[in-house]
Amino acid sequence: MFFASDNWAGAHPKVAAALSAHNTGYAAAYGDSDLDKAVYERFSEIFEREVAIFFVATGTAANSLSLTAYNKPGGITFCHRESHIVEDECGAPEYFTGGSRLRPVDGALGRIDPSALEQGIERFAGEVVHAGRPMAISITQSTEAGTIYGLDDIEAISKIASRYGLPLQMDGARFANALASLETTPAEMTWKRGIDILSFGGTKNGCWCAEAIVLFDLDRAKELTFLRKRAAQLFSKSRFIAAQFDAYFKDGLWMETAHHANAMAARLAAAIEDDENSKLAWLPQANEVFAILDRKRAERLLASGAAFYDWHMPHGFDGHIGENEGLYRFVTSFATTEKDIDRFAEQLRA
Amino acid sequence: MFFASDNWAGAHPKVAAALSAHNTGYAAAYGDSDLDKAVYERFSEIFEREVAIFFVATGTAANSLSLTAYNKPGGITFCHRESHIVEDECGAPEYFTGGSRLRPVDGALGRIDPSALEQGIERFAGEVVHAGRPMAISITQSTEAGTIYGLDDIEAISKIASRYGLPLQMDGARFANALASLETTPAEMTWKRGIDILSFGGTKNGCWCAEAIVLFDLDRAKELTFLRKRAAQLFSKSRFIAAQFDAYFKDGLWMETAHHANAMAARLAAAIEDDENSKLAWLPQANEVFAILDRKRAERLLASGAAFYDWHMPHGFDGHIGENEGLYRFVTSFATTEKDIDRFAEQLRA
Amino acid sequence: MFFASDNWAGAHPKVAAALSAHNTGYAAAYGDSDLDKAVYERFSEIFEREVAIFFVATGTAANSLSLTAYNKPGGITFCHRESHIVEDECGAPEYFTGGSRLRPVDGALGRIDPSALEQGIERFAGEVVHAGRPMAISITQSTEAGTIYGLDDIEAISKIASRYGLPLQMDGARFANALASLETTPAEMTWKRGIDILSFGGTKNGCWCAEAIVLFDLDRAKELTFLRKRAAQLFSKSRFIAAQFDAYFKDGLWMETAHHANAMAARLAAAIEDDENSKLAWLPQANEVFAILDRKRAERLLASGAAFYDWHMPHGFDGHIGENEGLYRFVTSFATTEKDIDRFAEQLRA
Amino acid sequence: MFFASDNWAGAHPKVAAALSAHNTGYAAAYGDSDLDKAVYERFSEIFEREVAIFFVATGTAANSLSLTAYNKPGGITFCHRESHIVEDECGAPEYFTGGSRLRPVDGALGRIDPSALEQGIERFAGEVVHAGRPMAISITQSTEAGTIYGLDDIEAISKIASRYGLPLQMDGARFANALASLETTPAEMTWKRGIDILSFGGTKNGCWCAEAIVLFDLDRAKELTFLRKRAAQLFSKSRFIAAQFDAYFKDGLWMETAHHANAMAARLAAAIEDDENSKLAWLPQANEVFAILDRKRAERLLASGAAFYDWHMPHGFDGHIGENEGLYRFVTSFATTEKDIDRFAEQLRA
Repeated sequence: MFFASDNWAGAHPKVAAALSAHNTGYAAAYGDSDLDKAVYERFSEIFEREVAIFFVATGTAANSLSLTAYNKPGGITFCHRESHIVEDECGAPEYFTGGSRLRPVDGALGRIDPSALEQGIERFAGEVVHAGRPMAISITQSTEAGTIYGLDDIEAISKIASRYGLPLQMDGARFANALASLETTPAEMTWKRGIDILSFGGTKNGCWCAEAIVLFDLDRAKELTFLRKRAAQLFSKSRFIAAQFDAYFKDGLWMETAHHANAMAARLAAAIEDDENSKLAWLPQANEVFAILDRKRAERLLASGAAFYDWHMPHGFDGHIGENEGLYRFVTSFATTEKDIDRFAEQLRA
Repeated sequence: MFFASDNWAGAHPKVAAALSAHNTGYAAAYGDSDLDKAVYERFSEIFEREVAIFFVATGTAANSLSLTAYNKPGGITFCHRESHIVEDECGAPEYFTGGSRLRPVDGALGRIDPSALEQGIERFAGEVVHAGRPMAISITQSTEAGTIYGLDDIEAISKIASRYGLPLQMDGARFANALASLETTPAEMTWKRGIDILSFGGTKNGCWCAEAIVLFDLDRAKELTFLRKRAAQLFSKSRFIAAQFDAYFKDGLWMETAHHANAMAARLAAAIEDDENSKLAWLPQANEVFAILDRKRAERLLASGAAFYDWHMPHGFDGHIGENEGLYRFVTSFATTEKDIDRFAEQLRA
Repeated sequence: MFFASDNWAGAHPKVAAALSAHNTGYAAAYGDSDLDKAVYERFSEIFEREVAIFFVATGTAANSLSLTAYNKPGGITFCHRESHIVEDECGAPEYFTGGSRLRPVDGALGRIDPSALEQGIERFAGEVVHAGRPMAISITQSTEAGTIYGLDDIEAISKIASRYGLPLQMDGARFANALASLETTPAEMTWKRGIDILSFGGTKNGCWCAEAIVLFDLDRAKELTFLRKRAAQLFSKSRFIAAQFDAYFKDGLWMETAHHANAMAARLAAAIEDDENSKLAWLPQANEVFAILDRKRAERLLASGAAFYDWHMPHGFDGHIGENEGLYRFVTSFATTEKDIDRFAEQLRA
Repeated sequence: MFFASDNWAGAHPKVAAALSAHNTGYAAAYGDSDLDKAVYERFSEIFEREVAIFFVATGTAANSLSLTAYNKPGGITFCHRESHIVEDECGAPEYFTGGSRLRPVDGALGRIDPSALEQGIERFAGEVVHAGRPMAISITQSTEAGTIYGLDDIEAISKIASRYGLPLQMDGARFANALASLETTPAEMTWKRGIDILSFGGTKNGCWCAEAIVLFDLDRAKELTFLRKRAAQLFSKSRFIAAQFDAYFKDGLWMETAHHANAMAARLAAAIEDDENSKLAWLPQANEVFAILDRKRAERLLASGAAFYDWHMPHGFDGHIGENEGLYRFVTSFATTEKDIDRFAEQLRA
């Protein structure tokens, strides 16, 4: 019943096996091995076009370096008020860029509202030196609220980006879960909808540590090479990341694990809906479930070994939370089992 | 015959096995799992005192964050002219610290000359605002030239550090090789000789990716927690690093691999000395061998599958290199076999 | 009728005369001249305690360096949503601090609301590494909306600062106007109410270029010395700033000019109130007047040579602005004359 | 007898008069006044082509921002070992650029040796990510050793810059003295010889505070606008700088003061040569004289009211300094009088 986060799981057995398989032999360091190159190639196939790939250590690094690739003095990145880069990265995006600013944009349940975005940018569109100027837009897919931007939603954002000449970054720490939810292709969900640079997360979906920047805007590739090294994010034994991605992509493992995590979330959501004393805060679209539970019941569940987090009210939440109730987040992963869910459901009803 | 670098090897089977063993089950993320904590404890045992441990992604990160922990406006870090932080980190130390300066110090074969160090610091000791001011001293053990600071050498440097009130950092990317060479203890080679903060490298000595900052100056621990996260160096599934270190330390594996690498270097050195057309540039003390070979012979070796690097003349080298000769670096590792060496020796003689 | 800003005026004749008077002779550079030292001493007298003084080139520099003096990795500065550091400094505070964050706090008419501040800080009080942590509070006196924090208001903020162990910075670009308005002393309005560091502006109130950081927290003085030089804010012929301040303080010139500017604002406000087609947006408390005018009338005034700015609606404004009306800002200064005001009033009525 | 530095003088009476003259009236702030614009125009005339002008507070700011305009991750600026940016700016260039590196180049008496420069750059020309990469070249005219690059010398450096695609910056804190010495034009000494960006100093040559970046590479102008503001270097009452430059350029005042300062240096040099117990360390070419004096004599001179500095041995100095002798620097300025020199000469002989 570990629903604290998808990063509490270990690694998928196939990922672990791949690491072991690539254990021996010598290979060029710093991302130049044959395996690294094969994996870069694999990314290009998956995205149906040439992409430049940069392995990095963490999702925070992927996001921060992506923004740094588009850094400007006085630059402002527009992102959702509750995005990971705002709430969970200790100011890394600002630090990496030497002080650019994140400007929160409103929007219900983790998704930027396009008109709020436009208004936000418009204010700085004159590039008045005192005020600073727009530098990038960042969206998260799936969002921190477990919701999804539909393809049209992404397009609406990217049209605004185009109008103002801004790059569009996607934080895809849970990219696979979004893809599974939308039943679309990586290409459709990214560059075909105007995404310029993507943080592609494998860690939460079955890897130990496999994060990559996928750069569609190839003119920036050389700079990003230096940016990554300068940020101490260039692995020497890079093939240990490559090996994980190799297994991750093989036979569609990554989509399998994402579908599984999403299905487990749906099962959990159903269990919560079934319980007469509990309710969903909103409908989950990927692998995160937000529920309103009686506080005492929640405490009992935690005491009995379940792990999940108390959550803050997201912007745009219009439901009702009773005096004795709380909002809680549950995250499922490749490792979540039906048995986990069913046991939780049982405890919930108890 | 892969002597290009010790980071061309994969991971030791026991390290790989540990990763697989910890594959399943849930564990708190971000370094708070039981395994992480057990490994922190293990570090304290190994160093015979309480230490604070920070896993990071790369040696460059360990060095850069360590200096950042002692950052000062106008700060100057004194380090060897050919140290890794000067030559191989793309300016990461300067970037992480927001612009502090590295000031190269001379010294033969990779080791700082204490009197040159003292002279270097003395110039800034007045803390004149225009000139900047001393901030830290950094030494590398074993050095980039494959040499070792003896315990007295470290003490000589640390006395200077004390006199000027400066912290002393050790870049221990090849810490184990130095330890094996000196046949001393981690404590003796570090805090008992005045080291304040250590980059402890496991990657080059048998891990996939296992680098830790070992902080002896515990008052700085809280700050370093924020510094690491802000630098995007906090792993979510931190136990994948912990698992590697767990295996690394178990039954003295790390010293075994280091002794092996050093022994292979000695064997290689002997083979070179034996060859009438080749000679050692200087005596290797750890797992790096620098040799003077006939250029044509070197090319032939490379063509026949050997991997090693052409090297620049280090400061303080007083040997003679003939017109048709070159200086080359050979690095051995846990994975190097006697057979590798013997085959190389044979080719060399051919 | 130049009400665009108080920085559109030149310098007070007495300030200009002082510059000319100190024109000749030699004096130690970089702030060490006798005149510099006398002016530092004068600041201590004015503030009724020892203070450390740092001349800088701009108000933006004063604010940015002040925050840098309290910089922390992952640090967050709480300030009003419409403060100068947020809206008008091109990200300089973030740049100077290498990426710390400004977190806007709500509050009516330019003044931070204490309970909103408390709530804002409370969220980060746990110092969770992901979220970042509180680093400072900044208030502006007088505010960007021409309002004033009363002494009790400052105390209410500083009590919160104390509770959370945070330094309290005051942006005093219009310090003298606030002082004149409150009819209190510099000491009462600053350190006696818990201010740790102050941006003391002379430029807007009759100098050419005279900005100083007044540091009450003397332990930070040495660091600030390096911070200022590193930020390229240490003037060589520093006495040209000292000379201005010398004249500024002599015989209370600074309070005279501030009282005059405030009086002119009051006269302008009265004229606007008198006009049946115009109204004050809110009561001015210092030297800035915000008025609601018919747009066409405003355009006519601008066409006839008046200079003033269209303004955005400040947070907490609860007045009504008609469809054909706009909100405008008028700033008076030492140079504003009664004749200016009367001529404007006449044109307004026309 | 104040020869400590040319920044110990005040301002030329004509500069002071101009400040007073522009004292009254209103003018657009932040560099947009008519006077500002007229001065920008004047710069274009003086340089015989369109230039972009950025007033800043200090020479350190001019240099640091100039390098920031060409900033690159992993970037290395090649400059003389004893240049102001290396020795006297407290790391500001590194800070402004967020951590780029200055790489000292050797060369006799303050001038970069072209072949040492080439060798220095060549090492990084491969743009290997570990090593960092060339970003700019900086020269100082006149140099810190009071010497001058001839037009051919500048061209030799700029040819290297071109070959490697690097921008060439000139630190012209003493630009006018160099110009007076070479009897050439501003255009010939800068863009016609390949200079891309210039720190144009007026402060040391008769202004209070008048430093400008002269940008020949107009494509960078917009970025520099943001860089300057973000660095808190945009003056509000910018016309106080403009007024100084206005007087500075009027009727060739600036060349008059420079010629005077140089002539005073020559007179001082002659006096030293005349003295049998003293000698010039090398021939002065602008307004700085370096002499070898008996230490006791030097102390006596200082005691009798003369001001000058003990100096370090510059790179490439091949003269002899006796055991009881010291090397001293004397700087003359617009304010130095023949009487000063003659009095000093008399004391020297005494």
